[in-house]
Amino acid sequence: MISKRSRYAVRVAYQDTDQARIVHHAAYLRYFEGARVEFWRGHGFDYDRFEKETGLGLPVIEARLRYRKSARFDDALEVETWIGSATRASVWIEATVSKGSLLIAEASIRLACVRFDDAALQRIPLALFDACLEPGHDL
Amino acid sequence: MISKRSRYAVRVAYQDTDQARIVHHAAYLRYFEGARVEFWRGHGFDYDRFEKETGLGLPVIEARLRYRKSARFDDALEVETWIGSATRASVWIEATVSKGSLLIAEASIRLACVRFDDAALQRIPLALFDACLEPGHDL
Amino acid sequence: MISKRSRYAVRVAYQDTDQARIVHHAAYLRYFEGARVEFWRGHGFDYDRFEKETGLGLPVIEARLRYRKSARFDDALEVETWIGSATRASVWIEATVSKGSLLIAEASIRLACVRFDDAALQRIPLALFDACLEPGHDL
Amino acid sequence: MISKRSRYAVRVAYQDTDQARIVHHAAYLRYFEGARVEFWRGHGFDYDRFEKETGLGLPVIEARLRYRKSARFDDALEVETWIGSATRASVWIEATVSKGSLLIAEASIRLACVRFDDAALQRIPLALFDACLEPGHDL
Repeated sequence: MISKRSRYAVRVAYQDTDQARIVHHAAYLRYFEGARVEFWRGHGFDYDRFEKETGLGLPVIEARLRYRKSARFDDALEVETWIGSATRASVWIEATVSKGSLLIAEASIRLACVRFDDAALQRIPLALFDACLEPGHDL
Repeated sequence: MISKRSRYAVRVAYQDTDQARIVHHAAYLRYFEGARVEFWRGHGFDYDRFEKETGLGLPVIEARLRYRKSARFDDALEVETWIGSATRASVWIEATVSKGSLLIAEASIRLACVRFDDAALQRIPLALFDACLEPGHDL
Repeated sequence: MISKRSRYAVRVAYQDTDQARIVHHAAYLRYFEGARVEFWRGHGFDYDRFEKETGLGLPVIEARLRYRKSARFDDALEVETWIGSATRASVWIEATVSKGSLLIAEASIRLACVRFDDAALQRIPLALFDACLEPGHDL
Repeated sequence: MISKRSRYAVRVAYQDTDQARIVHHAAYLRYFEGARVEFWRGHGFDYDRFEKETGLGLPVIEARLRYRKSARFDDALEVETWIGSATRASVWIEATVSKGSLLIAEASIRLACVRFDDAALQRIPLALFDACLEPGHDL
């Protein structure tokens, strides 16, 4: 499995800082989520349309986060996103936050697929893999 | 119209501070909202049940906020909430945030009533007024 | 007084929605703040450098917010920002949020200037006006 | 090492929900943080005073989060918090979120100790262990 990748720019908001004068650890989940939606869109999987057309969603069921260095107000950060591994039941999205060449944070975020109506687990949509994996590479 | 009142305790979270070492101005909307839901519940209007049973909601359509003094991490704040004025189309919720005898912030927050299905404006539910106004006092 | 203006693009995050399937009213304060910092930067006033070099800050002391229409997940919004009026003690920043030609929300946000060390009020920095007002137009 | 434990009540805010009508995954970090500060306070370690008196802080450097079930608006949740393991360089805080007998989420959150002035790593303060571990139990 070889995943496509994408890069997403974030400017750190004042609101994302805390009194330690660094980005609060919860703010990174916002950055990862924004980057994820653009990762999908950039490769042809429109998440908003997916939810509307299928009544399915891709909630986060697990997250592993490592904070390497502090980010600060007004920093110009870059989030790189790709698919780490996947089964039909869940997919691990990998991501890093960097400031220039400095690694700030890393995440492995696992998504499942649920039907909103009854919260029943579904298979991860093939359309997501078709969009984000290199051609000729299966799960 | 004479409104009942209620008091709601807030402990300032680390996440609510910013690098100015004070509570970020957006965090107060969280405090006001939490206090509002408890104000209603305390007088017999269960907002969660209201949404579920009626398919209606009470979105914020206007807010006027004044920040008088800074609040800080771990401060024990108190939000006082009451109904300022109302028509059948909207209701102004008044609130203050205090730290002991020190006034920290004031808000006037106007709510409308909408039907979720089609976003159509509805009358403010009488059940809200019945719960939160003193008996014998009309709009 | 004639203010320069600027436009700032926001893509609505999933996190900014609530169970009414619209953008939560508090999320707009994030959009206005992000737009404000870029409004300043775009006209030559670097807020981050200002804080670092002067030990001063520009906290929000008042906000008036009107929510006209709902915004939704993944909406591409635009925030327009300009200076509405100012004295040496405070400045009103005006802003609108639009989706295409549809007005979503309006804000008037008043900032003061404080010295972080002792929270003493200071005059609004002339550098901000020099950057953001059209030449030849005084306060 | 045997850790003391504490329980912390959370009422889910409207703002913490997203359009999937569940609590957004980032909101749990707020719950864990609030519970952690009260865990410490309840056993005699005042985090606010600690920061002020020592110039040190306990930033999150790693987090492992598992989301088992969805929580919803107005749910009355309970966070249980304890120390999982520790070295002098970092401490793992364990926590669960439950709704009655239903396990909603689990977290392992690793904290380091830094000096704010220069971001230098420090040893985890013994006062924290003295407060939160059962007497006679070393690291």
